[in-house]
Amino acid sequence: MEKYVIGVDFGTLSGRAAVVSVRDGRELAHAVYDYPHGVMDRAIPTGRTLPPDWALQHPADWLEVLQHVIPEAIRLSGVAPEDLIGIGVDATACTVLPVKADGTPLCFLPEYRDVPHAYAKLWKHHGAQEEAERLNRIAAERGEAFLPRYGGKLSSESMIPKIWHTLNEAPEIYETADYFIEAADWIVWQLTGVLSRNACAAGYKSMWSKKDGYPDPSFFRALDPRLERVAADKLAGPVVPIASRVGGVTKEAAALTGLPEGIAVAAGTVDAHVAVPTANIDGPGKLLAIIGTSTCHMILSQDEPRVPGICGYSEDGLMPGYFGYEAGQTCVGDHFAWFVENGVPAAYKTAAEAEGLSIHQYLTKLAEAYSPGQSGLLALDWWNGNRSILVDMDLTGMFLGMTLQTKPEELYRALIEATAYGTRMIVENYRAHGVAVKECYATGGISRKNPMMMQIYADVLNMPVYLTETTQCGALGSAIMASVAAGSKAGGYPDLFAASAAMGKVSPTPYLPDAGRAAIYDALYQEYARLHEYFGRDNHVMKRLKQLKYRQLTE
Amino acid sequence: MEKYVIGVDFGTLSGRAAVVSVRDGRELAHAVYDYPHGVMDRAIPTGRTLPPDWALQHPADWLEVLQHVIPEAIRLSGVAPEDLIGIGVDATACTVLPVKADGTPLCFLPEYRDVPHAYAKLWKHHGAQEEAERLNRIAAERGEAFLPRYGGKLSSESMIPKIWHTLNEAPEIYETADYFIEAADWIVWQLTGVLSRNACAAGYKSMWSKKDGYPDPSFFRALDPRLERVAADKLAGPVVPIASRVGGVTKEAAALTGLPEGIAVAAGTVDAHVAVPTANIDGPGKLLAIIGTSTCHMILSQDEPRVPGICGYSEDGLMPGYFGYEAGQTCVGDHFAWFVENGVPAAYKTAAEAEGLSIHQYLTKLAEAYSPGQSGLLALDWWNGNRSILVDMDLTGMFLGMTLQTKPEELYRALIEATAYGTRMIVENYRAHGVAVKECYATGGISRKNPMMMQIYADVLNMPVYLTETTQCGALGSAIMASVAAGSKAGGYPDLFAASAAMGKVSPTPYLPDAGRAAIYDALYQEYARLHEYFGRDNHVMKRLKQLKYRQLTE
Repeated sequence: MEKYVIGVDFGTLSGRAAVVSVRDGRELAHAVYDYPHGVMDRAIPTGRTLPPDWALQHPADWLEVLQHVIPEAIRLSGVAPEDLIGIGVDATACTVLPVKADGTPLCFLPEYRDVPHAYAKLWKHHGAQEEAERLNRIAAERGEAFLPRYGGKLSSESMIPKIWHTLNEAPEIYETADYFIEAADWIVWQLTGVLSRNACAAGYKSMWSKKDGYPDPSFFRALDPRLERVAADKLAGPVVPIASRVGGVTKEAAALTGLPEGIAVAAGTVDAHVAVPTANIDGPGKLLAIIGTSTCHMILSQDEPRVPGICGYSEDGLMPGYFGYEAGQTCVGDHFAWFVENGVPAAYKTAAEAEGLSIHQYLTKLAEAYSPGQSGLLALDWWNGNRSILVDMDLTGMFLGMTLQTKPEELYRALIEATAYGTRMIVENYRAHGVAVKECYATGGISRKNPMMMQIYADVLNMPVYLTETTQCGALGSAIMASVAAGSKAGGYPDLFAASAAMGKVSPTPYLPDAGRAAIYDALYQEYARLHEYFGRDNHVMKRLKQLKYRQLTE
Repeated sequence: MEKYVIGVDFGTLSGRAAVVSVRDGRELAHAVYDYPHGVMDRAIPTGRTLPPDWALQHPADWLEVLQHVIPEAIRLSGVAPEDLIGIGVDATACTVLPVKADGTPLCFLPEYRDVPHAYAKLWKHHGAQEEAERLNRIAAERGEAFLPRYGGKLSSESMIPKIWHTLNEAPEIYETADYFIEAADWIVWQLTGVLSRNACAAGYKSMWSKKDGYPDPSFFRALDPRLERVAADKLAGPVVPIASRVGGVTKEAAALTGLPEGIAVAAGTVDAHVAVPTANIDGPGKLLAIIGTSTCHMILSQDEPRVPGICGYSEDGLMPGYFGYEAGQTCVGDHFAWFVENGVPAAYKTAAEAEGLSIHQYLTKLAEAYSPGQSGLLALDWWNGNRSILVDMDLTGMFLGMTLQTKPEELYRALIEATAYGTRMIVENYRAHGVAVKECYATGGISRKNPMMMQIYADVLNMPVYLTETTQCGALGSAIMASVAAGSKAGGYPDLFAASAAMGKVSPTPYLPDAGRAAIYDALYQEYARLHEYFGRDNHVMKRLKQLKYRQLTE
């Protein structure tokens, strides 16, 4: 009897489930549900407005996702519930929710409904920049051993800055919250009744490591005496390995979702990191780029080299037995969306409609006619700051090389190229610090939608670029985790490597670099690299302009 | 009996005439005629295509202008022809035409109709870049005294590079041309039957000076032995002061134009330079910015300081008794036209139409809501290179500071601000080298159309900005020249100062700088200046990108 698993992927704007065959990873059906509250970046449901740089989610939306997409995906798949052997869940991270000891989110309680800090802080909530900077300064002064694990600089998007931000602005929320918990772990808790902390998010986002656990209380005390027991108290709960079984689906969860009671629930994971087994990444040298609104770059290493400017690395964080490294570009698809929204003339819109193309397809069609270097343009892909390797959210975008003949499609292509240069910068940085990179694997929506972009990536990186064959890399990844959590006896797999080999799938025909194009892009990349240093480290004009801007906005 | 003069202004795309009262400069009527051939930058009338960077005009178009706009302006004005006492002509420069000894343009002769070099090379013809660079190198090696008069670097737009370019590519045209002549001088020749060279164009564009005349033949020989007698032969003809009488309208010209035979024809002038008397510029300290597609910056000085990076200075070239200095920005209105053409989304077009506004008006309305610094953007206004003070046509544009929230109107405002910073760079350069600048006067289409832009200029320059009260500064300037050429006896003026005082007019209420805004713009200008040095002199990335682009286009 064929067995099936379900993966549920909680993204920024929606959640989606896929029903997947354990045997070969075939996706039988999937279902999507948009969060009713979306991203709350202007106000919370009571109407209270939010400061700039805030981004919240509502945990009620996550429950609605479970309630809608699981039954629908099962129904569409035609699979009998008794053939389902497990469920896995991934979510954006660090997306952190303050809860009571029984798991109740503070924002569910009437007395906290009007307090912004009672909601879930989304991964891209940037309100904790000051806390992150103080944390980095103090950690560097103390020579904390964890700092190199995060490329020398912890992001304001990570757990402790977000908790500290809460403590500073809403101490009553900090006090009353028994725990702060990642979205994925909270959802697993709702399904199993068991509080766990997945080792993936704990490692990448919460300063935990397999060897050393959390930083010493003395470090947290140095940040703020009230934080001394933050790890012991607010982050309490067992840290569990990825693909492990946290528990079985409870009766209540079964009622909510239509899942059979008692089937395996895998430890949560991070939405990007969970893509690694979908791409058959089974050892060093293979970079996985998950390309969407932003891009994450995952790679395995047998050793533990220190790489500056990365997001972090974690032992067993991606695949067991390896150090899994993560770097990232904070803005990729968002660049193209911005451009299409703000920089494309009416005539283009009309022409695209006449040809039955989306504006992205139309611009790509025009941009394809250009060879590397032909536009004379160069961009810095920093419209939303730089995550790796400069780790500076105050950097901004740049276009250079325009003449009176410059066309919109050239700017569009320059933006695509800039994101490729940004990826190459990350690759070169990995290599320069002892992490080998030999091939590139790509997944995520854009990788399948834009062949021109993937060819540019192959030419800029001068490496073959392989595409995964799923359109649902998060949900498939979680389904793979579920098949391991269910275990061999139930019809699943003994370990993640076996599951990945059977259920992940990569297109056999990669995008191959062309030597001539690669040579031109090599020259252009040198120009990019020089400006990357100049604007990233030498001339802080972008940061000064941003300060001036905020001064204008707040005066 | 009130007397009148006519000024005819030959621009890049059209010619226009104004009938003007001698007494007070009042414009009674004007008429415009678009050149039938426009700017020929792709092909000549035989169909022969042109290389990139070429820009030609057809002298037949200039005759058609005379034939159309003069009778029409007279008719519309209601002035009796016998009350007209003179005509003045200005044109773009250096716009140079090869002609036979009798004035016949080579392109009028059947045997040369298919030869691009037989047509008039327009001011913005950039085919002679290589010749200009060789000329500058040789002149610098020889320590030629004329070089500092041109800011240390002669432009490829000037006369000798253009003639040399002809010699190199079409030696038969060089040989068969008895003269090379500026458009304005050729038109005056058609009106008077007299060959003259106006001192304004000769000084700014043809390396002539009142003190030293043309460079020594040994210099021209050093360029190319065949050029040794270029000044003596190909530029032969008396150099005449501005506002002087070259001759009277001939019978043939009277028949063509409806002008009374014999009335005074003033020496030609350059279209930008002729604006000086329209703005009552009567002494040092008053910068005149003629703002249109590009901007020229004119100022008088009693002394003769050497100013690097300017276009040039010429004794008596603007007003008698002064050294007249010229600097320029090669792209101003063209930036905004490019942006509107290439960077404004459909929704903006629709909204502008709904409000009955032009897209420029609509963008300006939105941009007005921003305070200095609020956009966080900075641009380098080099979409068409940099004329002053870097004198480098291979520089290109830059936008910096974009975020995902950046709107089109912010980019539009940033472009306007960039042109203001470019003007300030020219002002600071004048000041740093001994030319005082205390007030700014502005004329040209854009200065009247966009009050926001003029306020930004006042704030960026931290100086009052006065507007002239004419919409036809070229034609009014030429009319003023005509009133002096006609002389007091005929009802005109004894000199240019008297004519300017009576006929020029400036708005009594300038745009005044605001101290708060000026302080912010001061900080932004420092950022601009630093990037101006970096991209203009330190990191030649723009030039390398352009080389790469041309390599792609020619391979």
